[in-house]
Amino acid sequence: MRWSQTLIPTQKENPADAQIASHQLLIRAGLIRQLTAGAYDFLPLGFRALHKATKIVREEMDRAGASEVLLPALQPLELWQKSGRDVAYGDNLMRSKDRHGRINILGPTHEEVITELVAANVTSYKQLPLTLYQIQTKFRDEFRPRFGLLRVREFLMKDAYSFDADVESLDRSYQKMYDAYTRIFSRCGIPFSVVEAESGPIGGSASHEFTAACDAGEDIIVTSDKGNYAANVEKAEIGERPHTFGGDPKGELQKVHTPNMPGIDDVGKFMKVKSKSMLKTLVFKARGWPSVGSSDRPENLSRPNWVVAVVRGDHDVNEAKLKKAAQEKFQIPAIELLDDPETRAEWCIGFCGPDAAVKNLRAVMIVDPDAAQDTFWATGANEIDYHVKYFNWFRECGQALADPKKVVVADIRNAMEGDPSPKNDGGKLKTSRGIEIGHVFKLGTKYSEALDANYLDDEGKSHPIIMGCYGIGIGRILIAAVEALHDERGIIWPAAIAPYSVIITPIRYEGEVKDAADKLHDQLESAGIDTLLDDRDARPGVKFAGADLIGIPVRINIGDRGLKEGKVELKPRKATDATMVSLSDVMGQVKALLAS
Amino acid sequence: MRWSQTLIPTQKENPADAQIASHQLLIRAGLIRQLTAGAYDFLPLGFRALHKATKIVREEMDRAGASEVLLPALQPLELWQKSGRDVAYGDNLMRSKDRHGRINILGPTHEEVITELVAANVTSYKQLPLTLYQIQTKFRDEFRPRFGLLRVREFLMKDAYSFDADVESLDRSYQKMYDAYTRIFSRCGIPFSVVEAESGPIGGSASHEFTAACDAGEDIIVTSDKGNYAANVEKAEIGERPHTFGGDPKGELQKVHTPNMPGIDDVGKFMKVKSKSMLKTLVFKARGWPSVGSSDRPENLSRPNWVVAVVRGDHDVNEAKLKKAAQEKFQIPAIELLDDPETRAEWCIGFCGPDAAVKNLRAVMIVDPDAAQDTFWATGANEIDYHVKYFNWFRECGQALADPKKVVVADIRNAMEGDPSPKNDGGKLKTSRGIEIGHVFKLGTKYSEALDANYLDDEGKSHPIIMGCYGIGIGRILIAAVEALHDERGIIWPAAIAPYSVIITPIRYEGEVKDAADKLHDQLESAGIDTLLDDRDARPGVKFAGADLIGIPVRINIGDRGLKEGKVELKPRKATDATMVSLSDVMGQVKALLAS
Repeated sequence: MRWSQTLIPTQKENPADAQIASHQLLIRAGLIRQLTAGAYDFLPLGFRALHKATKIVREEMDRAGASEVLLPALQPLELWQKSGRDVAYGDNLMRSKDRHGRINILGPTHEEVITELVAANVTSYKQLPLTLYQIQTKFRDEFRPRFGLLRVREFLMKDAYSFDADVESLDRSYQKMYDAYTRIFSRCGIPFSVVEAESGPIGGSASHEFTAACDAGEDIIVTSDKGNYAANVEKAEIGERPHTFGGDPKGELQKVHTPNMPGIDDVGKFMKVKSKSMLKTLVFKARGWPSVGSSDRPENLSRPNWVVAVVRGDHDVNEAKLKKAAQEKFQIPAIELLDDPETRAEWCIGFCGPDAAVKNLRAVMIVDPDAAQDTFWATGANEIDYHVKYFNWFRECGQALADPKKVVVADIRNAMEGDPSPKNDGGKLKTSRGIEIGHVFKLGTKYSEALDANYLDDEGKSHPIIMGCYGIGIGRILIAAVEALHDERGIIWPAAIAPYSVIITPIRYEGEVKDAADKLHDQLESAGIDTLLDDRDARPGVKFAGADLIGIPVRINIGDRGLKEGKVELKPRKATDATMVSLSDVMGQVKALLAS
Repeated sequence: MRWSQTLIPTQKENPADAQIASHQLLIRAGLIRQLTAGAYDFLPLGFRALHKATKIVREEMDRAGASEVLLPALQPLELWQKSGRDVAYGDNLMRSKDRHGRINILGPTHEEVITELVAANVTSYKQLPLTLYQIQTKFRDEFRPRFGLLRVREFLMKDAYSFDADVESLDRSYQKMYDAYTRIFSRCGIPFSVVEAESGPIGGSASHEFTAACDAGEDIIVTSDKGNYAANVEKAEIGERPHTFGGDPKGELQKVHTPNMPGIDDVGKFMKVKSKSMLKTLVFKARGWPSVGSSDRPENLSRPNWVVAVVRGDHDVNEAKLKKAAQEKFQIPAIELLDDPETRAEWCIGFCGPDAAVKNLRAVMIVDPDAAQDTFWATGANEIDYHVKYFNWFRECGQALADPKKVVVADIRNAMEGDPSPKNDGGKLKTSRGIEIGHVFKLGTKYSEALDANYLDDEGKSHPIIMGCYGIGIGRILIAAVEALHDERGIIWPAAIAPYSVIITPIRYEGEVKDAADKLHDQLESAGIDTLLDDRDARPGVKFAGADLIGIPVRINIGDRGLKEGKVELKPRKATDATMVSLSDVMGQVKALLAS
């Protein structure tokens, strides 16, 4: 392809709103262009990179035995109502009302659609296992689209769904996808790591996230400095931490008037107490009990109304961990942060202390180990506009602390830099930011039960199909590549997803140089090496800068002088120097460079 | 691929609502499934056919020198307001309001988006010509989606846009796309014809339509029985037809009371007059005059308010022809069928006769040649609930008929079966139904002017870029193939777009037959021939019927008996008989069959 015959609108300046390297460079190199908030044109170079990544994804999905389908973006709202995700997705869900007044969802994902498809067409264990995938455009109404391709409202995604008869089979299907993902990102030439992850609003029982480093990434990745643990912060466990409710009071309980202070930091500052010496008390509503009369509802079910979570003032409650602890310790199906104003007032939210949980017969309390310590504490006074100093666990809460049906200690907070590794081998946790480029989930039967996707076993008994789901944001492969691989001059594409493998830069595109450039271009193209020929009427410096900016792996400079000796200059994008190569050797050397 | 490892939900019965072969067979063969009105799942077999067609389209676009891009489906409403198409597209335009209340269009096409892109990035003649294309999902809110993939609300389309500096260059770009389309449909193996077409709401100056035969098609194709003319009925011209306003009255003008008759046929029946002896008079509003003070507005511009069209009662006015005649004969920029109730009442719409045009000083009249005849006529009496018999052109309209500034005769109706060919070589026109599978347009500067897409020539002067646009509905390639190529047993895919090239049917999938089937499957796959192995536990008759239904070009039956002699049965889908072939010859024969 000749530069002048396609559209490569490079620009010298970074766009004003672009804060991260991938956003800056993908725009400056003319790969993408914003059409409207969170929706980007992929220009010719951008499309080529995207398409090469897509091709690798497709090849590896096929190799893993998955069958490709293509499902509509338009999805009937009714399907989402069946799974309850019309509510769970909230404002992120884009809708379109048709001319007859019916509402369609613009799919952000396709669990409902594919489950309904399988429910209608798979009936027997003989048709399982089955893995279907598609490469298709997704929509999500992000509140604040930003960072270029990172947080967008329309994006290309590969989503796969596995259907199995039993858990062992699911494990095999999951592993196949896990392995395929590893091959995909390796082949694309981007650095990545795999971390344990929470499954998020998609629901499910186990998941791994494939992440790439990115300072603007939405994910906090937690790793052990021993190198044997990695997880998303939403999932990351923390190692053993000794704790006790014992110990004598450090002083008399002292009430302090603390009006008009919006945050715990303000309160601490006013009271001259560090936030790590404060107890943060959050109240959640217990939810999801089987309805009255349901056979799942035990006769003598104890049903606490409230779950009170207590963590240190400088820590954040991890809702997933809290939910899990509430399930395991108190058999509470689900929890929800208190939000109705009346109940919040009853609990004195903002001024609530742990002893309030003890006094409320319908409440249970879960305390993080770091909060269950024999030390000085400040906390809420359970009275509007008041806090207390010298809170003592035993004095304030008494015997209830010893009742495991009332109070338990459990890891319910987000991991932080310096925490002990959950491997309990002396490792310390570190945190870093990254973006999710792929995600594999074990879904279980959430969707198959909601949408009646069942199979008959060899004895004719019906069971819900066990599902997994697996996503890759194809555009994020480009982000990951550019974030990891660039220098001050521009992008340095991995060969596998470079828009072109080779760029030919004639010093002047005329006479013998032009002929040689045209001939070499055709030779390389015939050999299946996609080649861009910079035929612009521009100074060599401009062309070199352009080639470096768009990041083509191999540049071939052709000039009069070299040509007289039958030579051209070969300059890998990664290298600092060029080497003179005779025309007859070019092809071999280019192939070697691209394979390296 | 093994049948049991993918999803091929064939069914015996035609779906109740499926009226045409492609709809019936694509569903019965398990290629597609309706998710919601006008939105279909492409199941594994359907996706494979679609993907093969897509690949051919992409290859030929690239070969024609076009560069691929990918533009968002979400388009800001403001862009459509600039081109005026937010109104012109009407209810077909799908919209989605985002969480901040802004409205996006779900693109049915991308002229605005790509013109705006080019406007921002192309400035010089040196960057032209340029052709960009994409293969992307389109949305259109059809009033009544039906006929399976034929009339849908979401569909995969290849749309290309050319940008040129002058008309000669546009002609070259247009021809390249025309040739590429010819190669695409030929390679896909579907019968098609190319017809001259009107450009429709997309605006423009010249277009060709690539059509495939389909009884449920929305297009009426007009061809000459001499084989030298083909056009869409919207565009089809009609050969010379002698006409005259002369001739004496055939009788006294006779008024007839005709109340409560909704159509011309009812009136004719009541009056005992055939509709071909009636004159149909339609009134259009003249529109689009340059505004007062505009430099485009000639001083002494004559500005008729009304265009009165007269055709024979059994003919239909062709608005595109009428518009063209109004422009050429009276310099009227645009016309619009009268729709405001007050003015319709003034014109006695439903009871209007040609003489009304003569009496109205601000009206001009265009009469179709078949209506300008010396014969008996019945027509409207220009009085509510009354018609007249024995209308005579000269008696009723007088000298105005001789004034070319008031009345002209021109071809303003749709062509019909039996009309003279516009080649005027004695040929007669025939009509047939078809579907549009591709369309090439010369757009001109409609969008570049609306969206300021200009280039500077070599003297630094600015001109609007001249555009063309080119579309292929990829799903319609599948419809065209199935409509043309099927029999009572199922689909007969052309090899180029068949979901699989070969299907292996072991008589029983066990023992040596299984081993031989597996081995042959792997051999064919290794040779790059995509092969489906029917590993189901089913009777041979069921498997044969399934293979015929899904239409795989070559079937290989493997049974115990043949295998003992080292032979298998080769059965092309098109052929009635199978032949025994030795295992060593299978590969060669399969390749020969697929290439034929």
